[in-house]
Amino acid sequence: MDRPIRVAIIGCGWAGARHAQAYKGCEAEVRWAADLDRERAKSLGAIQEGIRTTTEYREALDDPDVDAVDICLPHYLHAPVAVEAAEASKHVLCEKPMAASLEGADRMIEAAEQAGVVLVIAENVRFNSLFHKIRDLLQDGVIGQPALIQITRQCYLTRSFLEERRWFLDAQAAAGGIMMSGGIHDFETMRMLIGEVESVQALRARQRFIEMEGDDTSVAIIRFCDGTVGTLVESFVMKSLATVAGSEVHTLRIDGDLGSLSVEDGSTIRLFSERDNFLPGGALAQHEIHVPEADTFALEIDDFLESIRTGKEPVTSGRSQRRPLEIVLAAYQSIASGQPVTLS
Amino acid sequence: MDRPIRVAIIGCGWAGARHAQAYKGCEAEVRWAADLDRERAKSLGAIQEGIRTTTEYREALDDPDVDAVDICLPHYLHAPVAVEAAEASKHVLCEKPMAASLEGADRMIEAAEQAGVVLVIAENVRFNSLFHKIRDLLQDGVIGQPALIQITRQCYLTRSFLEERRWFLDAQAAAGGIMMSGGIHDFETMRMLIGEVESVQALRARQRFIEMEGDDTSVAIIRFCDGTVGTLVESFVMKSLATVAGSEVHTLRIDGDLGSLSVEDGSTIRLFSERDNFLPGGALAQHEIHVPEADTFALEIDDFLESIRTGKEPVTSGRSQRRPLEIVLAAYQSIASGQPVTLS
Amino acid sequence: MDRPIRVAIIGCGWAGARHAQAYKGCEAEVRWAADLDRERAKSLGAIQEGIRTTTEYREALDDPDVDAVDICLPHYLHAPVAVEAAEASKHVLCEKPMAASLEGADRMIEAAEQAGVVLVIAENVRFNSLFHKIRDLLQDGVIGQPALIQITRQCYLTRSFLEERRWFLDAQAAAGGIMMSGGIHDFETMRMLIGEVESVQALRARQRFIEMEGDDTSVAIIRFCDGTVGTLVESFVMKSLATVAGSEVHTLRIDGDLGSLSVEDGSTIRLFSERDNFLPGGALAQHEIHVPEADTFALEIDDFLESIRTGKEPVTSGRSQRRPLEIVLAAYQSIASGQPVTLS
Amino acid sequence: MDRPIRVAIIGCGWAGARHAQAYKGCEAEVRWAADLDRERAKSLGAIQEGIRTTTEYREALDDPDVDAVDICLPHYLHAPVAVEAAEASKHVLCEKPMAASLEGADRMIEAAEQAGVVLVIAENVRFNSLFHKIRDLLQDGVIGQPALIQITRQCYLTRSFLEERRWFLDAQAAAGGIMMSGGIHDFETMRMLIGEVESVQALRARQRFIEMEGDDTSVAIIRFCDGTVGTLVESFVMKSLATVAGSEVHTLRIDGDLGSLSVEDGSTIRLFSERDNFLPGGALAQHEIHVPEADTFALEIDDFLESIRTGKEPVTSGRSQRRPLEIVLAAYQSIASGQPVTLS
Repeated sequence: MDRPIRVAIIGCGWAGARHAQAYKGCEAEVRWAADLDRERAKSLGAIQEGIRTTTEYREALDDPDVDAVDICLPHYLHAPVAVEAAEASKHVLCEKPMAASLEGADRMIEAAEQAGVVLVIAENVRFNSLFHKIRDLLQDGVIGQPALIQITRQCYLTRSFLEERRWFLDAQAAAGGIMMSGGIHDFETMRMLIGEVESVQALRARQRFIEMEGDDTSVAIIRFCDGTVGTLVESFVMKSLATVAGSEVHTLRIDGDLGSLSVEDGSTIRLFSERDNFLPGGALAQHEIHVPEADTFALEIDDFLESIRTGKEPVTSGRSQRRPLEIVLAAYQSIASGQPVTLS
Repeated sequence: MDRPIRVAIIGCGWAGARHAQAYKGCEAEVRWAADLDRERAKSLGAIQEGIRTTTEYREALDDPDVDAVDICLPHYLHAPVAVEAAEASKHVLCEKPMAASLEGADRMIEAAEQAGVVLVIAENVRFNSLFHKIRDLLQDGVIGQPALIQITRQCYLTRSFLEERRWFLDAQAAAGGIMMSGGIHDFETMRMLIGEVESVQALRARQRFIEMEGDDTSVAIIRFCDGTVGTLVESFVMKSLATVAGSEVHTLRIDGDLGSLSVEDGSTIRLFSERDNFLPGGALAQHEIHVPEADTFALEIDDFLESIRTGKEPVTSGRSQRRPLEIVLAAYQSIASGQPVTLS
Repeated sequence: MDRPIRVAIIGCGWAGARHAQAYKGCEAEVRWAADLDRERAKSLGAIQEGIRTTTEYREALDDPDVDAVDICLPHYLHAPVAVEAAEASKHVLCEKPMAASLEGADRMIEAAEQAGVVLVIAENVRFNSLFHKIRDLLQDGVIGQPALIQITRQCYLTRSFLEERRWFLDAQAAAGGIMMSGGIHDFETMRMLIGEVESVQALRARQRFIEMEGDDTSVAIIRFCDGTVGTLVESFVMKSLATVAGSEVHTLRIDGDLGSLSVEDGSTIRLFSERDNFLPGGALAQHEIHVPEADTFALEIDDFLESIRTGKEPVTSGRSQRRPLEIVLAAYQSIASGQPVTLS
Repeated sequence: MDRPIRVAIIGCGWAGARHAQAYKGCEAEVRWAADLDRERAKSLGAIQEGIRTTTEYREALDDPDVDAVDICLPHYLHAPVAVEAAEASKHVLCEKPMAASLEGADRMIEAAEQAGVVLVIAENVRFNSLFHKIRDLLQDGVIGQPALIQITRQCYLTRSFLEERRWFLDAQAAAGGIMMSGGIHDFETMRMLIGEVESVQALRARQRFIEMEGDDTSVAIIRFCDGTVGTLVESFVMKSLATVAGSEVHTLRIDGDLGSLSVEDGSTIRLFSERDNFLPGGALAQHEIHVPEADTFALEIDDFLESIRTGKEPVTSGRSQRRPLEIVLAAYQSIASGQPVTLS
């Protein structure tokens, strides 16, 4: 395909707008902005010239000039709309989490394969330069073999955030709470850095965010296939100066035989390694490694477009992104049953 | 009893020496230092004048002038020696963990009650001024009702530490690994700050410290009776600049409805509270509260001596300290079975 | 004036572009973008509809519909162009430093007064919410009377920064080096927080940035009229992870009778006060106060426009901003003579 | 001399007691503890067996078995007592500052040379492992050639500190204030790390510590012979959580062509270097290098004893330590005159 790929964005909230901005730098043309809320569609449409707006996404699916759809809808709509798009022979980029259930995910994968279209999940952690650097360091053996990984995600949902997406409060529409919205990123990060998950045990804390049906705070311990263990803390209600002032705080720490590496601020890796070349002049030392931030939205869209053009396997194919959903659903099952859940 | 209470210290390693130092400031007289290793007994005996040394602790138990024994032995010896001491009508101060099994703990409690002697477990977290301050802040409601508590204990066992106590490597003698030695403190801290534990799920990481039989790294998630949840990370092999340079690093964070409080450095509480009086001039603020360190060994010994003198209930009575042992053993049971364990 | 004030921006580099963005939210209309480099003028012109571009700024001065000019030129051109603009009866907003010499500054003030136009210097520290909060805290006496103020400005000039403004390397065009470009902000901050400067002694470090004629690193000690002393460290070549990764690092600390306040990160005030209401429950405490950032460019432009409309005295009038220039020039005189310079 | 060197400690306050402790590990025998306050002499005498106590130091000087005296007196007594000791053919270790005047220092040097005894000043920065590591890093060129050095010393004098040494409040007895007591260390550190000082300009802040005659807070800027510049901030009244809780806070930062190194916490060097081997895998990185603390008192005493035994030149000979005194006195002259002072 020599011409720009033509995309319809379905769902014009925060994620849709971010995607629309990212398309500006790519060989693509946003042709449609679809949202039930006409104002939101218009507002996204104003990002670039030539975007048509509609409140009826099927209008975009019916447009023979559209090559691909980009789905930024409430979570429970991902599967049905993605299936419909694939059946209309459109390539599909779908926001995370892939679907509200494994059945939904499987229907998406099947529909895409039958239609011969590309199915990509917008899981941006796979494009995060910080995690790539960490993976490289691990593969170089700087901390030996990992034995423990700890991740926390500390947010404080503000009123303005929620007014933009009231469906977040509805456990059905959001397919859960923080473990679904945030945890799915962090399980995928763990898979990227450590490997496959064997089992998960999770607990949900006493609810503080009472307007929300889904879990506002959940924790998990994870056993990986290689014997590494992990802990995960996910919360929408972690109040500190940083979160109340508007930041999300993610922390990560991995401990291995020969050292540790950790991230506190989202962009700097703190590394302690007992390997000789990390002990300057024999001195005990710790290292802060700066990783320049990349626009993960642009990178994932580029990968989607390249997969369409060349037929290459996408980094975050539907098939690959079924697994973090499976882990999240296992965590919810563990919360419900009080029992550990072993992954298949 | 008007005269100083006369104490026999049984076990003259690190803990015994610390106790001996602490007795110097108390109304007590250390009369015996007993250790199988005559050099260790002598070295402790040199701390104060008038201490007799022996390699046979029964000699001290047989001394009618001895009022109390202070047991600083390898963990598996706590119960048998404590029972013997109680049967010899000596008051008993015993290092943590209380015993290697609940049966052992119960025998200790029963023997003390039958003999009418005081039984105290040297669990110093109950005397830590930092935790007292945190409990006061929680009771004042500065962060509202807690929903999540996270504790980590990060040590790096050095060769010199272990040469002093080779029994640490033996899972039988140490009654486990880090979850027993470190975890018992942290479960007691959680009980002190949050309340009673309902259930625990734990995992042990792939062993890195191969000379050691017990767990070198374990994690747990905890459900408290009031719906709060907790995470616990315990490790003897967390290598960072701080631990390799010789410090133990303990971190604590509690999140509630109205804020959070955390400790990173062992002596300063970082507090964020949405309560009016913590927002100077209405401004968002975080507070670092300094808590002067107290000598917890001296305080626990004072409490032991006062309980002997006055008959008051000790802060860390055998009966009260059976519970953290029960939780640790539940954690080990969960590690072994892969299942959550509900406390009785 | 009921209609939007019509502005000509003269100089379309970084500062001009920032100003142009800020005008978008104000009751003003940018009518001209003038720059010798036609591309730069065009690029700024694209920020909003209706901006005419020219390479000849006199074209804008001759336009009778223009009410005000906004001068974002190399430092040595501030005075001549501002005088010309005033003589053309245009109100003047001029970037800092006001002029390259006190004579230039005086000519600007005189020309504006004779023409009856407003003359404002774009010194944004006077509009910085952080400094306003600090001033309020000082006035409330939280640290008692200040005795010592320390400010550092740590930058690392990058190649891309300089390619945009090669005149920075020319001591004549830039009217000096870092003490002029950065120091003028910090002396004004000191005046705002402490008061009037009595004398200044300065030293210039061995040059490291050899492409630059002006000082790359200078230090000063300052005596204020009230007996407070200050230290100032200014450098274009402070290499740390933060500066090399692109940030400017400013630090500020003020010590008084009853405590201290400091800023390390540009947005949080760390306060220690011995006053009762800052010692929660009598405990020693330190406070981190978050100050939300404001758009200082928009605020200074608003103040300029309001001064034009209402005749009120501008916050950063030419007359008031002559003083920080005088202090900077005294610092350069001290560097040259090796002697302290007392301000008039 | 095969036998232990016999030492008389004159002045039994804080420094005397520290020295006495340090002698325990050295080949020396403390024979006398002399102090006008009999209790203080006795208290120091209790540190080791065999120490005689006196309130009349001449008794110790008259003892033919005494080889050396260790002078820990108020500053103004250093010179007269050291001269007397040298004249009695005793080797002399004298606390810093060497003397209250250059004349005093010269008399000390002359008396020692005439008597053929060793004269050492107890300037412990020369034995500090942190500064040795920094000097090594600088000599390895990790930050290129230094251009700027900044040192701050932040203390908060407590009542209990001063009750121990009320002569500190007397400018005559203390030979000044903080610039003498603290500054002399930091100027010597600067000489050790950068090189010889050419000139100094200093200011004294409005006094806050009104019970004290000497300066409580002073600042200086320094020109070194090689064109490097320095800033120095010295204060007895810097109130922050750390200082009020009892710590002295020293900070140090050196900026060079290729990077910077700094110390915030007294024991860890933070290094940023653009040299290839400090950019792991080409990544921007900062390094924290841990330097194990050494007992500088023991090291300086060892050097003193070895100089006596072998005739080697002491590291901190009286001749070498005249210079930091000269710089401090120049700083005081600058404070008094308001003019820069060029060193000879």
